[in-house]
Amino acid sequence: LTCAAADAVMPVWILLSSVPGLKAEDGGMEELTTEKEAEESHRQDSVNLLTFILLLTLTILTIWLFKHRRVRFLHETGLAMIYGLLVGVILRYGIPATSYHNKTPPSCSLKEGPASTLLLNVSGKFFEYTLKGEINSREIHNVEQNDMLRKVTFDPEVFFNILLPPIIFHAGYSLKKRHFFRNLGSIITYAFLGTAISCFVIGNLMYGVVKLMRVVGQLTDKFYYTDCLFFGAIISATDPVTVLAIFNELHADGDLYALLFGESVMNDAVAIVLSSSIVAYQPSGANTHMFDASAFFKSVGVFLGIFSGSFVMGAATGVVTALISFFGLHCFPLLETALFFLMSWSTFLLAEACGFTGVVAVLFCGITQAHYTYNNLSEESTKRTKQLFEVLHFLAENFIFSYMGLALFTFQNHIFSPIFIIGAFIAIFIGRAFNIYPLSFLLNLGRRHKIRGNFQHMMMFAGLRGAMAFALAIRDTATYARQMMFTTTLLIVFFTVWVFGGGTTPMLSWLHIRVGVDPDQDLQPCGDRQSKTKQESAWLFRLWYTFDHNYLKPTLTHSGPPLTSTLPSQCGPLASCLTSPQAYENHEQLRDHDSDFIRNDGDLTYTFGDTSITANGASGGGGGGAAEPAWSANGKRSGSTSEEALERELDSREQELLSRGTRLVFPIEDHI
Amino acid sequence: LTCAAADAVMPVWILLSSVPGLKAEDGGMEELTTEKEAEESHRQDSVNLLTFILLLTLTILTIWLFKHRRVRFLHETGLAMIYGLLVGVILRYGIPATSYHNKTPPSCSLKEGPASTLLLNVSGKFFEYTLKGEINSREIHNVEQNDMLRKVTFDPEVFFNILLPPIIFHAGYSLKKRHFFRNLGSIITYAFLGTAISCFVIGNLMYGVVKLMRVVGQLTDKFYYTDCLFFGAIISATDPVTVLAIFNELHADGDLYALLFGESVMNDAVAIVLSSSIVAYQPSGANTHMFDASAFFKSVGVFLGIFSGSFVMGAATGVVTALISFFGLHCFPLLETALFFLMSWSTFLLAEACGFTGVVAVLFCGITQAHYTYNNLSEESTKRTKQLFEVLHFLAENFIFSYMGLALFTFQNHIFSPIFIIGAFIAIFIGRAFNIYPLSFLLNLGRRHKIRGNFQHMMMFAGLRGAMAFALAIRDTATYARQMMFTTTLLIVFFTVWVFGGGTTPMLSWLHIRVGVDPDQDLQPCGDRQSKTKQESAWLFRLWYTFDHNYLKPTLTHSGPPLTSTLPSQCGPLASCLTSPQAYENHEQLRDHDSDFIRNDGDLTYTFGDTSITANGASGGGGGGAAEPAWSANGKRSGSTSEEALERELDSREQELLSRGTRLVFPIEDHI
Repeated sequence: LTCAAADAVMPVWILLSSVPGLKAEDGGMEELTTEKEAEESHRQDSVNLLTFILLLTLTILTIWLFKHRRVRFLHETGLAMIYGLLVGVILRYGIPATSYHNKTPPSCSLKEGPASTLLLNVSGKFFEYTLKGEINSREIHNVEQNDMLRKVTFDPEVFFNILLPPIIFHAGYSLKKRHFFRNLGSIITYAFLGTAISCFVIGNLMYGVVKLMRVVGQLTDKFYYTDCLFFGAIISATDPVTVLAIFNELHADGDLYALLFGESVMNDAVAIVLSSSIVAYQPSGANTHMFDASAFFKSVGVFLGIFSGSFVMGAATGVVTALISFFGLHCFPLLETALFFLMSWSTFLLAEACGFTGVVAVLFCGITQAHYTYNNLSEESTKRTKQLFEVLHFLAENFIFSYMGLALFTFQNHIFSPIFIIGAFIAIFIGRAFNIYPLSFLLNLGRRHKIRGNFQHMMMFAGLRGAMAFALAIRDTATYARQMMFTTTLLIVFFTVWVFGGGTTPMLSWLHIRVGVDPDQDLQPCGDRQSKTKQESAWLFRLWYTFDHNYLKPTLTHSGPPLTSTLPSQCGPLASCLTSPQAYENHEQLRDHDSDFIRNDGDLTYTFGDTSITANGASGGGGGGAAEPAWSANGKRSGSTSEEALERELDSREQELLSRGTRLVFPIEDHI
Repeated sequence: LTCAAADAVMPVWILLSSVPGLKAEDGGMEELTTEKEAEESHRQDSVNLLTFILLLTLTILTIWLFKHRRVRFLHETGLAMIYGLLVGVILRYGIPATSYHNKTPPSCSLKEGPASTLLLNVSGKFFEYTLKGEINSREIHNVEQNDMLRKVTFDPEVFFNILLPPIIFHAGYSLKKRHFFRNLGSIITYAFLGTAISCFVIGNLMYGVVKLMRVVGQLTDKFYYTDCLFFGAIISATDPVTVLAIFNELHADGDLYALLFGESVMNDAVAIVLSSSIVAYQPSGANTHMFDASAFFKSVGVFLGIFSGSFVMGAATGVVTALISFFGLHCFPLLETALFFLMSWSTFLLAEACGFTGVVAVLFCGITQAHYTYNNLSEESTKRTKQLFEVLHFLAENFIFSYMGLALFTFQNHIFSPIFIIGAFIAIFIGRAFNIYPLSFLLNLGRRHKIRGNFQHMMMFAGLRGAMAFALAIRDTATYARQMMFTTTLLIVFFTVWVFGGGTTPMLSWLHIRVGVDPDQDLQPCGDRQSKTKQESAWLFRLWYTFDHNYLKPTLTHSGPPLTSTLPSQCGPLASCLTSPQAYENHEQLRDHDSDFIRNDGDLTYTFGDTSITANGASGGGGGGAAEPAWSANGKRSGSTSEEALERELDSREQELLSRGTRLVFPIEDHI
């Protein structure tokens, strides 16, 4: 048996070096000892992983029981954490902390600094060693004792490189929602501006708390201003899981769902990039860690560079996949699914290889895939890909949450600081308030149809912290400050998931937010729709929509109007070459089952037709089916017509977010 | 960024230790250097893995092209190997062998033997190092140079613990075939006895070759008899992939398919256990490596112990899953699928934790799941689980084969020995012949319906070597003998996959084996079916079948006759408690879409009904639908009646394997 070292900095836990093996070339006692040791540790590892698997199994069984009995006060993620906690307690206190052998490892001295590879010369034979990390001098003698607890501790990078990508990709892939695109402007505002505000507010408040701690004498080691900002960044990532699962189950208001979902998905990406920009913010005077204009602008530059780079990377891979899937594989769902999976994974790797953030790239890749590739896949493949990522997502998510529970007791370097923890709870509350209320106020100035008070309160309440905050916190727990942050983050996650997660249902009814919205019920006609004001439709978005609808969609998918009708006539040959035969067919008979945008368009004209009917005094009525041929007719008028339609949509897009029943177009995941 | 060491002895490449990180507690130049290095290596790893992903993508696209143009001379696995070879050539010769930095790593000396953990004291700070492996003294100075090539080399255990389990599980899970159970006796004979014969024949022949090499002076290091036997074991594992894909596509004879499929799946398990028993065969006199009766019996004991232990483990987990799925989760396909996945994985871990062979346990778990759990899953979940494992299997398989191509040029310690290679080619040919022909002769003595000559020749020809042989060979490449074996195995895999795989279609027509068997065409009535001889139905199998059909199936699944009708009347209350309400319904109206055994039973009675019609002079005719009520009626007569039915089946079970068209019940995977 061999024991190899993995560079786990990255997803390439798989990409291990081939190792000639521990076996010496002639058999001997020492070989046998090493082999036995390796076997013993191999078994121990199996047992550990088995613990996790059984934990997940138990969670699934209990979820099933809860679903069966319609228990809603505890979500599956909360449940997973509880089981994790229990197992953590058992591991920590139930098992005597003796190791299977009590040797202190041999030690040797060098004057040079630590290199990643070290050679050991044992009587002429050379052995290669890899650096595992620094250990405290007080821990030297119980390296082996700690081994068992450390074994059940994951490499933090595992969260980033294995567990988060499927979760984030799934979020992006299932983002293809009408309500999302309708509220895109607000979502982006909350996600970018809001997260930045939250980060700075929390960071500064925590700096005050830290100063207080120093005064009181509770601070035993360094805690810089950048550390506080870093904490602000990681704790600003809200979790879409728990609240939204309940929203889905209760069929809560679609626009509120879209705002929350969109915000929490996008702010994960923002938080990752923000936190790494803060780490990159190292003032040239080394240890000052104070404000420095040049370093600040460098950080902003890093933020913009990494974010846009990751975005472009993700979108590009999505487009490439769409192009590949455009040209066929229709008859082979297995090939399609495998290709889809591989291309999505390669987005992650490509971004990491270029120094960007894989997780962010994966998010935008998911969105692009949902927008373009999804339309090209065969019906079988759309189902397969969705189900594949659903399972991966489900497993990864429950794994993370049960691991969180476990980490409270098995992580070795917790620093519980009551002042810091209480301060953090207050700070995240204030930070969330500074995010939601002022931005909602500003957005409401621009929006014709306001985000009402009860929606704002719900968004305030729904600021749960989850997987992303945890993953960012565990990524680096080397220093005193980071250890304290990690402990605090863990407690915040527990509290918010259990208390806020469990309180979602009562809160919804307390805030009079309508639940049980009939998914089949379409948008109700709105009286004040005629009063359109052009300036509120963002010209950039309009430009993009037109470009996408007229050129990208027809080039990359089999849906949308044929290029021959959208391109100028002098491009005729090129257009007919790029347009698939199916596009013509689809143009006549819309396949609205696989394209939300198409559905959108249908609704658009419906809205329009509806409005004109309203103008004539007859409101409502008429199925979506009657509208589609009308749109088809519109589409044939090409170019300008589709822009007209868009404008009409954009005008009505930001209609008031009343708590009246709107059609919930999110797939109702009854089966989860 | 952190750099952690993984104990990759096991599937727990994930279960990495949490590492405090390389970061020293106060920032400094050395920290920056280490961080940059880590980042650099992280990027390099991403690029490497990206190479593999792109390789797979390319393979998929080419497969699609081939499928599209109906190219059959090269299977996807062969294709994957070719792409792997090309990339290997580029990596080896295309990129200058300079490393990104040229330092020789620091070295230190110790008198003790190498421990798995080493502490390094750098001016008072302690760093932990993990053993990576021994390196040759001549390689010390190009440790860094080799790094790049070694990076694209996987840990051999990855094959065993990540890539093989899904492949093997899928094989077991898709084994639910009527023809398989019909030919079970022959399959087991070929798999157990045949593999053992093949192993010993090849081992002894290779020992002769090795002796010849010593005489000629071609042998530069030790090569023991046990090494030869080990080679015999690893090279006896035949691959089910390539030939059977072609069989499936061409709809070749069902019984031949079952014989080949069953043999190659089962002999993988036998080869694993056999090879580890041979490794365990260490005569007490240390380095003699000659025959020793006590060690031999120890080996046999180890073989039996590991095999039966793994078998029990796999079957037990399968049964537990069946029981869990029996009690519900019906409405939640996602939960069902996740549970199914986790339970199957825990089989692997449980077996490894107990010291058995995970891969073998996974095989039997797959078979049990297919037999029991499959019947309890909702329709949605059966599709989901099948598709999930299909994708995993597809990816893993193509990964292994493209890696094989890559390994030819990137593996560092190839030993090409022409004599050994030629000897091995001859030996595997002879070994296969000693397996197939004598055993077929013996089996034909017992079988009423013989395995005819052309079938035997096809089985001889179809002895391709693939993933399992490779994985076993790469598992340990520490010694001279093992390195030579690895090189030879690689070449044998290439040759057999390309030449024999490509030659399958011509061979089928040359041997006059009927292809294009209509899947809808049932077994044709056979004139000599009346002449039943009871002794040929194995009593043990009959006993098992009756027990399974009357007690296990009703207890573990929702199909089969209700327990109330099969248990003695005094067990009434227990029986009605254990029988699900659905069983009664199913009993009336068979859900034959999800149970091959049920279908089997239907066919059984059909066959019987058919026979009686034949006896009356009117052969053939009558749909399966007409037969099922007849069976239902039979079933109600309970107990003894089902045994009668079984006997009828068993009598006709071993009917002559003529090359006439038999119904191909294997799902025709058009979509792959």
